Amino acid sequence: MAAKKRKNIVVMGGGTGTFTVLTGLKKYPFNLTAIVTMSDDGGSTGILRDELGVLPPGDVRQCLVALSSSDELMRTLISYRFSEGGLKGHNFGNLLLSALEKITGSFDAAVEKASEVLRIRGRVIPSTLDPVKLAAKIGARTVRGENKIHSTKINGDLKNLWLEPRGRANPKALAAIRDADIIVIGPGDLYSSLVPNLLVKGIAEAIRKSRAKKVFVCNLMSYAKHSKNFSVADYTAVIEKYLGGRIDLVLYNNKLPSGAITKRYAREGEMPTRVVLPEDHTAMGASLIASPKGKKRLKHDLIVRSLIRHDSNKLAAQIVRALDKKKHRTH
Amino acid sequence: MAAKKRKNIVVMGGGTGTFTVLTGLKKYPFNLTAIVTMSDDGGSTGILRDELGVLPPGDVRQCLVALSSSDELMRTLISYRFSEGGLKGHNFGNLLLSALEKITGSFDAAVEKASEVLRIRGRVIPSTLDPVKLAAKIGARTVRGENKIHSTKINGDLKNLWLEPRGRANPKALAAIRDADIIVIGPGDLYSSLVPNLLVKGIAEAIRKSRAKKVFVCNLMSYAKHSKNFSVADYTAVIEKYLGGRIDLVLYNNKLPSGAITKRYAREGEMPTRVVLPEDHTAMGASLIASPKGKKRLKHDLIVRSLIRHDSNKLAAQIVRALDKKKHRTH
Repeated sequence: MAAKKRKNIVVMGGGTGTFTVLTGLKKYPFNLTAIVTMSDDGGSTGILRDELGVLPPGDVRQCLVALSSSDELMRTLISYRFSEGGLKGHNFGNLLLSALEKITGSFDAAVEKASEVLRIRGRVIPSTLDPVKLAAKIGARTVRGENKIHSTKINGDLKNLWLEPRGRANPKALAAIRDADIIVIGPGDLYSSLVPNLLVKGIAEAIRKSRAKKVFVCNLMSYAKHSKNFSVADYTAVIEKYLGGRIDLVLYNNKLPSGAITKRYAREGEMPTRVVLPEDHTAMGASLIASPKGKKRLKHDLIVRSLIRHDSNKLAAQIVRALDKKKHRTH
Repeated sequence: MAAKKRKNIVVMGGGTGTFTVLTGLKKYPFNLTAIVTMSDDGGSTGILRDELGVLPPGDVRQCLVALSSSDELMRTLISYRFSEGGLKGHNFGNLLLSALEKITGSFDAAVEKASEVLRIRGRVIPSTLDPVKLAAKIGARTVRGENKIHSTKINGDLKNLWLEPRGRANPKALAAIRDADIIVIGPGDLYSSLVPNLLVKGIAEAIRKSRAKKVFVCNLMSYAKHSKNFSVADYTAVIEKYLGGRIDLVLYNNKLPSGAITKRYAREGEMPTRVVLPEDHTAMGASLIASPKGKKRLKHDLIVRSLIRHDSNKLAAQIVRALDKKKHRTH
């Protein structure tokens, strides 16, 4: 081709981690696509699923806001959470997506219209358009629902994780994966944001077949109930298990957060991810943590966010570095 | 002036009647301004006022939709009413305005942003930005709240009608009235849509002082509880009483609706407005009723609308005729 082709970047996940990576990457001239987990069933999203029978809007909404080129007020509006009365806890952007889905009869059409209203740069694609719920076999017990699984202790005792129904991949997601130059998995909650995408029928296979470089952005912290004492190698192993294939590059944080914040996390049993790297992998360590100054509670958001987060700019810069590097040896 | 100046049309009211007249008038090259009643406290609007402490969004929202140049889906979205769960009865456009008011701290700013999102042709201006409630002295009894007053029988027994607090006029409303070439009052519910605007401190005086031609679009039907057996002259007299001045032209319907529909209304005690014209007034009679074919239940709206309505095109055509006519003798 004569003109230099823009690189196709696919980011997979949902929620805050994906918001962060998209916020950083959208400053670069890439074709950016977010493929979003569709198994969320907590909070405002859970109520809307239950009461209106819609697909989960929450993670999609966060990705839309990340990629929006609308003004500050519009983006604040979409993230706005009502704090009083019968609407309490409902997020305006979730209501927007759910109303559009009810009107059009299609979550896909709803996301497209919301993308237009928010003038997003890039695309936001639900990984599946089937109404999937996450289920887990933990020891002898079956737990159903992502929200419930999230609050259930499963360390070392997870026998199986699956979607009900399994969910067929959104064809747009498969096409984006096929055409990707780089696929970024994470950052995000391991079992509630990252793995559910890989459980959708067709997604893992498409990733394995894609010529894209597969990058895993490893979690900064362990989550006491799901990944206690996990190292970079442990996280990577779980992703590769559900992917059924190799990650080409692992990005991990190599700088400890400040003592005060770490202490607060430690009280919840959450520790910085141990820097034990997966053998026989390419791994890039960098200081990826946002400075506490850069952290703030989302405006009008009732949920107080924890404070150890990726820095969107540092993370994006490392992904760009990874893109420029030659693909390492294949296995 | 060298260039021909666009005429300034001000329409005063709120709700369905104002929606109709705006829908017709927006097809003409006018500077169109809707001044909207702010005393609504029923339905979704009432709940939002009570629970969130916001100003009433419902009538403003209808005017925004009428003037919107957005696509059909966007306009349907704004009019969409949730029909299930805890959101049941809430109108998406109302939630939009209320969320914007909570974020910006100003209903005025909320209306401006919503006007931009909906790409409206013209302006929608709340008559007051004070949190007014309608109150009525009916016989010996004081009834508070527009919704309650609407369902209370007051025929011939209305001693007083006022706002609590009285409410200062929105300066933008006063400016629009001052600069108007024509001010159209109605159509709309007499005591819940039309008179409340005239009760706002400064509005009636501004109308009296304006050089604009004042047109009253008379109600098609009587409302059993408020205006039983009213004639065109009776309606006009009420408007002039609260205006404290003269209406220049009364537009009234001179064609009876079909027997079947009239019969259904009659069961509720509602009759076509009697064609007894106010003495010493200019009045223009025309067939203003929309044909039943043109009537439909608003999409996604839970409220079944009654069927005798003004035809937006016929009504607009008559208003344009009135505008072209020389102003009749003043009194």
